[in-house]
Amino acid sequence: MANLEPEKRTLLNHHKEKHFTAGEVIRDIIIGVSDGLTVPFALAAGLSGANAPSSIVLTAGLAEVAAGAISMGLGGYLAARSEADHYSRELRREQEEIVAVPDTEAAEVAEILAEYGIEPHEYAPVVAALRKRPQAWLDFMMKFELGLEKPDPRRAVQSALTIAIAYIIGGLVPLVPYMFIARAQDAVIASVIVTLIALLLFGFAKGHFTGSRPFISALQTALIGAIASAAAFGIARAVQT
Amino acid sequence: MANLEPEKRTLLNHHKEKHFTAGEVIRDIIIGVSDGLTVPFALAAGLSGANAPSSIVLTAGLAEVAAGAISMGLGGYLAARSEADHYSRELRREQEEIVAVPDTEAAEVAEILAEYGIEPHEYAPVVAALRKRPQAWLDFMMKFELGLEKPDPRRAVQSALTIAIAYIIGGLVPLVPYMFIARAQDAVIASVIVTLIALLLFGFAKGHFTGSRPFISALQTALIGAIASAAAFGIARAVQT
Repeated sequence: MANLEPEKRTLLNHHKEKHFTAGEVIRDIIIGVSDGLTVPFALAAGLSGANAPSSIVLTAGLAEVAAGAISMGLGGYLAARSEADHYSRELRREQEEIVAVPDTEAAEVAEILAEYGIEPHEYAPVVAALRKRPQAWLDFMMKFELGLEKPDPRRAVQSALTIAIAYIIGGLVPLVPYMFIARAQDAVIASVIVTLIALLLFGFAKGHFTGSRPFISALQTALIGAIASAAAFGIARAVQT
Repeated sequence: MANLEPEKRTLLNHHKEKHFTAGEVIRDIIIGVSDGLTVPFALAAGLSGANAPSSIVLTAGLAEVAAGAISMGLGGYLAARSEADHYSRELRREQEEIVAVPDTEAAEVAEILAEYGIEPHEYAPVVAALRKRPQAWLDFMMKFELGLEKPDPRRAVQSALTIAIAYIIGGLVPLVPYMFIARAQDAVIASVIVTLIALLLFGFAKGHFTGSRPFISALQTALIGAIASAAAFGIARAVQT
């Protein structure tokens, strides 16, 4: 920040703004656990309520966890790769336009700043300054015209693994009782208790990390689990008759 | 755009930049159909391969679709609400800071522009212009310091319904054969064919809308379905023994 006036730099050092950032990893964990704690639980509870044998309930539950983890994990990976490719394409296009039609690109900078009530004589030096620095100009257009951030190439794999593992851990919580209790109709009671506690704790943590009210978040998360399992139970009963 | 110089406005009118935007609704459809076409299919195929009766396969599949649609739909709704609350909180904080510590906020504007190699004498008129217009200054900080866009309040409900309905439609495609073919081991063959075609078509459309190569996208999407069902099949067989 060599070109920042000394008094401004002092002000920035003294004043720390605490703006909340959840973090990409926490976001992926929340994505994985949210569905992982809910769907396998609801499926198993629904099948138990429809009087399916415990082995079927466990088979369906674990198969769903495997399929869900792969679908969300690989799906998340492809989505992140797609975003990275999209960024590269847009970067190349902007680069070409800065070279081919600089006056149009300069007009776009002017348009961006003009939206904030800044007059031509006020923004003209900024536009001129950017025109002299093609790399900075490119970065400015990527961020301020297109709103794109350069994606981290490792993010795709990290995102996929985080979501998949989070889904598996979330899914195993409600299924473990079925591994130890022979009758599904008994196991489901343990599953409901364990999963309800897990949903409340996870919902609380989610609220804490995203800056929402944790107690409300806990109740909402548990409620979604309850609604999903009620729906699964209803559908299972309906199909069985 | 009253303060945009006439020659710049002319350039912008003549030059249309085609930058790709997938659209929020398309993104939600992709999210719903991606998992909806994959997980119920894999679950049903896995259970069929483990020789479960057709009624169980259909019960489990439909119960999973119900649970998944609710989990993803309500989960998406809460996530959108959470983002809207986050934006409101950050807006209020910036508003207070513009009033309470304007010199610090002005320093932040300077820091943002300085990152692009713009010198103090070049950005000073812009900073001064923003200081005179508190609303524009607030909008500038929200966008350029925090990178936050004002969320549409209707988005939360729209997003939830879109994802849920997309998941249900995606999930029904592989399950319909089980409604008409009595033996699961026969129905699964029809399910595989129908779902494979659906995955290829959906993957192609996804690639088209996101600007990725559609044929590659079609193959990737079908491959995820294949891997997920192989995993579900393997797990189901393992649990049954």
